[in-house]
Amino acid sequence: MKRIAAPLLTAAIAGALAFSAQAETYPGVPALEELGSASPALADYTETLVLGEVWKRADLSPRDRSIATIAALVARNQTGELRFQVNFALDNGVKPSEISEIITHLAFYAGWGNATSAAAVLSEVFKERSIGEDQLPPADAELLPLDEATENARANRVDEVYGGIADGVLKYTTEALFRDLWLRPALAPRDRSLVTVSALIATGKIEQVSFHLGKAMDNGLTKPEASELLTHLAFYAGWPNIFSTLPVAEKVFEAKASQ
Amino acid sequence: MKRIAAPLLTAAIAGALAFSAQAETYPGVPALEELGSASPALADYTETLVLGEVWKRADLSPRDRSIATIAALVARNQTGELRFQVNFALDNGVKPSEISEIITHLAFYAGWGNATSAAAVLSEVFKERSIGEDQLPPADAELLPLDEATENARANRVDEVYGGIADGVLKYTTEALFRDLWLRPALAPRDRSLVTVSALIATGKIEQVSFHLGKAMDNGLTKPEASELLTHLAFYAGWPNIFSTLPVAEKVFEAKASQ
Amino acid sequence: MKRIAAPLLTAAIAGALAFSAQAETYPGVPALEELGSASPALADYTETLVLGEVWKRADLSPRDRSIATIAALVARNQTGELRFQVNFALDNGVKPSEISEIITHLAFYAGWGNATSAAAVLSEVFKERSIGEDQLPPADAELLPLDEATENARANRVDEVYGGIADGVLKYTTEALFRDLWLRPALAPRDRSLVTVSALIATGKIEQVSFHLGKAMDNGLTKPEASELLTHLAFYAGWPNIFSTLPVAEKVFEAKASQ
Repeated sequence: MKRIAAPLLTAAIAGALAFSAQAETYPGVPALEELGSASPALADYTETLVLGEVWKRADLSPRDRSIATIAALVARNQTGELRFQVNFALDNGVKPSEISEIITHLAFYAGWGNATSAAAVLSEVFKERSIGEDQLPPADAELLPLDEATENARANRVDEVYGGIADGVLKYTTEALFRDLWLRPALAPRDRSLVTVSALIATGKIEQVSFHLGKAMDNGLTKPEASELLTHLAFYAGWPNIFSTLPVAEKVFEAKASQ
Repeated sequence: MKRIAAPLLTAAIAGALAFSAQAETYPGVPALEELGSASPALADYTETLVLGEVWKRADLSPRDRSIATIAALVARNQTGELRFQVNFALDNGVKPSEISEIITHLAFYAGWGNATSAAAVLSEVFKERSIGEDQLPPADAELLPLDEATENARANRVDEVYGGIADGVLKYTTEALFRDLWLRPALAPRDRSLVTVSALIATGKIEQVSFHLGKAMDNGLTKPEASELLTHLAFYAGWPNIFSTLPVAEKVFEAKASQ
Repeated sequence: MKRIAAPLLTAAIAGALAFSAQAETYPGVPALEELGSASPALADYTETLVLGEVWKRADLSPRDRSIATIAALVARNQTGELRFQVNFALDNGVKPSEISEIITHLAFYAGWGNATSAAAVLSEVFKERSIGEDQLPPADAELLPLDEATENARANRVDEVYGGIADGVLKYTTEALFRDLWLRPALAPRDRSLVTVSALIATGKIEQVSFHLGKAMDNGLTKPEASELLTHLAFYAGWPNIFSTLPVAEKVFEAKASQ
């Protein structure tokens, strides 16, 4: 590792310099220097390897990396790092309405408490940046059109397999998820899939990755993007979660290649 | 989604209105309005879907839902949402002694750090509500009678399978768990099972659900209750943990039906 | 359970009395008394069972227990309990440089957000104890010698199995992990393995334990130490994670015994 000769460079500036040429730190986000007072090596890896190299790799845009990172952090309830990443995401071109909708989506896919903790962080950052409720997706929104045939097939398949065990689960899977949440227009289906897959990988729900990674690719996530997503998430979800995902991803990639 | 025309309605009031007609918010718990400043949709889902509909469904009492929710949050170390839910649980009829004992139980089933973080939240709420140590289960309590035959059979079975790998684990499983913790009278065995199962599902320890869901039903949790528990936890543990639980629950339900 | 007749005994003092005869509490760490205001039983189990008995058991030194506990807490993002355990670790003989390096190691094995949250806690404790950056491992360090044959074999094996799925993952596994991080001298390979295995068990990444527990034993962790590690982690990672680990540990122990 080589240290960049810029002792006052903060994590936020490092990110901003790298991606949006903004030279301001983010309020309430500890500087890279403070990381260095606990671990100079961690500060250096953050600056040179993660922000300075990984985030700039081809095949996945900084915007998509921000979406995946926020999903991972919210799913893992990591509100500390989230404050930096929400600011960074806004600078990387993720819209306030999209971040808001990511939190809403993850209430269902990562748990209500994760979403409410994340909302508290989001609320503060939005205030600091004067982002008002008029920029956020309304509760009532005109939904995207539904592919009835596909959705009915999904519902029937799940009912055949799981009917009678917990019918409330199946009811809300249909009513709240696939006929409501997934059709809300504030987040494109491809991005909603990116959020879902990132959350699953980040929390080690490997047995659910197969369905949602396939769906993500149906929704437009390319194989190079999915592949690079695994590389990116290695840093934010930890290596073990990625190595557990590799064999599942392999099968999904093979299935899609032979379609 | 339809917004209820009550802009000052808070999460706590929404809950209180729905379940105990109490019209006060809880100290330190952010209002539903604040949720709305990050995501109007999340605030609306919380109010109309989760508090306004799910919590009122039949087959599982608000008291049992509160026990399951607290168990899920403690197991996931979600101290933010926990503050609301502890207040809400007290209003739903869960006794202070029971909440205290849930935390103690989860020290063993979810990890010591989860219990100590939760205890800090609990301690504050108890102070705010003037709940003194005289209302809490003492460290030394007369234990419930033990079914020696069943416990010996369990210990022998585990010893046959796992003897010699980590004998300290087996020693404390017997001494600290099944001959002490599980016999403490502050939480009925059925409720202790409800806590354990909820914690396992909420943390994705699916491979341990089979034993404990079976035990929960032996301890008096009915099939409709167990089924509705999965529906409830979908919202607090996230959909993926529930879909991973469904096949395990199915086998337990079948086994119990044929007994 | 028997309460020790010392109502002013704090968690920190209990630990200090037990292990280093130091009679001071740690700044910012709630006293055992406060635990008792939420759960007298939890305070008592902490004092008499965990600190008073488990930490003193043979086969694993207090220093190793501190390393394992810190790894478990960082991997689970439990910054509350971490503050006590970092202080306790320093009193148990873990060097500041080692704790710093554990955090760096876990950035890769548990996720970047876990490491940055932990670094914030570490930074405060280091300030309180006047531990300066001169006592911490530098970003640039002369690396331990690499066993090229073993590392090439590992890289080739992984490439055969996983090549083409996410080549960035394999690239950084080689470049950042096995040819850099694992060779940093601030943490002995045996301790690095202890950290990795503890983190895997604590987060339920059971499918990755086999490789790393085997590697830990190759790096010098004895079978009695590994066995006692499971007993220790039962308390910090929760019983379910340990019971899921037992069958995997059994196979690793058998394989090592027949080598």
